[in-house]
Amino acid sequence: MPIHDPASALASAALAIEIPVAWGEMDALGHVNNAIYFRYLESARVEFIRRLGWKAPEQGSGHLGRQGVGFILQSVQCRFRRPVFYPDTLSVTSRLGDIGEDRFTLRHEVISKAQSEVVALGEGTIVTYDYVAKAKVPLPQTLRDIIVSISTARPHT
Amino acid sequence: MPIHDPASALASAALAIEIPVAWGEMDALGHVNNAIYFRYLESARVEFIRRLGWKAPEQGSGHLGRQGVGFILQSVQCRFRRPVFYPDTLSVTSRLGDIGEDRFTLRHEVISKAQSEVVALGEGTIVTYDYVAKAKVPLPQTLRDIIVSISTARPHT
Amino acid sequence: MPIHDPASALASAALAIEIPVAWGEMDALGHVNNAIYFRYLESARVEFIRRLGWKAPEQGSGHLGRQGVGFILQSVQCRFRRPVFYPDTLSVTSRLGDIGEDRFTLRHEVISKAQSEVVALGEGTIVTYDYVAKAKVPLPQTLRDIIVSISTARPHT
Amino acid sequence: MPIHDPASALASAALAIEIPVAWGEMDALGHVNNAIYFRYLESARVEFIRRLGWKAPEQGSGHLGRQGVGFILQSVQCRFRRPVFYPDTLSVTSRLGDIGEDRFTLRHEVISKAQSEVVALGEGTIVTYDYVAKAKVPLPQTLRDIIVSISTARPHT
Repeated sequence: MPIHDPASALASAALAIEIPVAWGEMDALGHVNNAIYFRYLESARVEFIRRLGWKAPEQGSGHLGRQGVGFILQSVQCRFRRPVFYPDTLSVTSRLGDIGEDRFTLRHEVISKAQSEVVALGEGTIVTYDYVAKAKVPLPQTLRDIIVSISTARPHT
Repeated sequence: MPIHDPASALASAALAIEIPVAWGEMDALGHVNNAIYFRYLESARVEFIRRLGWKAPEQGSGHLGRQGVGFILQSVQCRFRRPVFYPDTLSVTSRLGDIGEDRFTLRHEVISKAQSEVVALGEGTIVTYDYVAKAKVPLPQTLRDIIVSISTARPHT
Repeated sequence: MPIHDPASALASAALAIEIPVAWGEMDALGHVNNAIYFRYLESARVEFIRRLGWKAPEQGSGHLGRQGVGFILQSVQCRFRRPVFYPDTLSVTSRLGDIGEDRFTLRHEVISKAQSEVVALGEGTIVTYDYVAKAKVPLPQTLRDIIVSISTARPHT
Repeated sequence: MPIHDPASALASAALAIEIPVAWGEMDALGHVNNAIYFRYLESARVEFIRRLGWKAPEQGSGHLGRQGVGFILQSVQCRFRRPVFYPDTLSVTSRLGDIGEDRFTLRHEVISKAQSEVVALGEGTIVTYDYVAKAKVPLPQTLRDIIVSISTARPHT
């Protein structure tokens, strides 16, 4: 269930990142363009995955260490509740939604400092993939443990 | 129901646009970045809306002529079926999904020429909004008629 | 003359902004894409112009208050000294270069925290334009005074 | 010397690509954002380099075949002559400017179909780099020959 209260959203998320809105992210309607929100959600997702021990794929690898297991974004969505304007700073939360055999879902609230409101709600489903075997693979148990532990840790503060 | 066959998707859509993939739209994983798909979907959506007689909001207005009625994107999503690489040219379809009292849904297939495959499926919900009264408003009947007529016209070819 | 030492660059600039690098700003070469630097330079330029009393053009106006005088970016350039990677935080400086009859030039250093280096040097020329008269106009004296005063103020710290 | 006549620019360029303007590439001023032009220039540059036999770096390599020699963009600039609006289709030319020991310069005109005007002029300097030795290297003679031959070939038409 989406959380619409900024303070509760921040307090209960596994983690949150801060992003300054760039003037150039606004489109001809004078507010932040819809595609830009997916860059914001991606930044929150990448930060979550980084906490799992994943390295930034500087060489295009995206591998999760020696197992050859990486992540693929299967789907992503965003619901826009209020327009966002420059100048502003956003907090983007990440919290674990469902966790399945070979996938997990992250949920995100986008919170505007200027408006003190949850301005958008996002959700992305990530599938574990063996880049060597070129096939979906079950979430390794060690990863599953880390995901759950990050998600139930004392909220970031 | 999503259409996975490129030829059927193109033949049955209300319209389709062509977009060349830019090299710079690929991210560090070496394929087109997820946020870019939402720029592609937006281009298809804007083209659909342009057919309704809507003018490009050069002054940030977004108004639909003298009624003061415009459109707001309420939510958008994308499911990624196969990665896309440069060089390629994409066709992005638009077809009417649901149409409600004050909203309608557009469905999109993203088709890769290089792969001859439907590589992604998108969907966006658009709400009619009175920018003067600052409130959601019912879809004017004239607009509803145009939307339905575009959507049931002989497919573009 | 460009300043290559990060500490001197920061100490002597009129102002500097901080920008977190987004993972999705890296391209298929695994480093931040060249076009993204122009988003960074723009953010620094907009912040400088905001200090002059300019309002964010939420309605596409770009006007400078009641004079109808606004700014147009005439040209911009960037020289890349070292690649930038996620994760990193950048400082982007702005300092006054030349100031002419109807234009001024801003110079920018892009400084990487992770590398403690000036990673790029930018420069943009801004022309004053009367949006009502649709013609270039001389920099109003009040604006010129503010620009010079910002630029010679005690460095931000 | 920049060429301001669209027909001459197209006729004399080594090559030109066509790019449809996306609605979402306009910013809050209601015209195409300055950073987007660098995506356009990049697309023209990449197409030029592809003609040299360079492969798209799907794995982040950017190598030029077995020599381990690749290209680095050293600097890029753009001068904006007229604003660009959606809908429009742009032609972006590439022509050889200077060619030096370890670098060459490409010049670009951006031509608007809707306006029948050269709307922007770009220029980028590309350095040859040995990714294995991690050092600038002279342009291999075979590459130099191809660059010159592309540039003096009968203009694309």
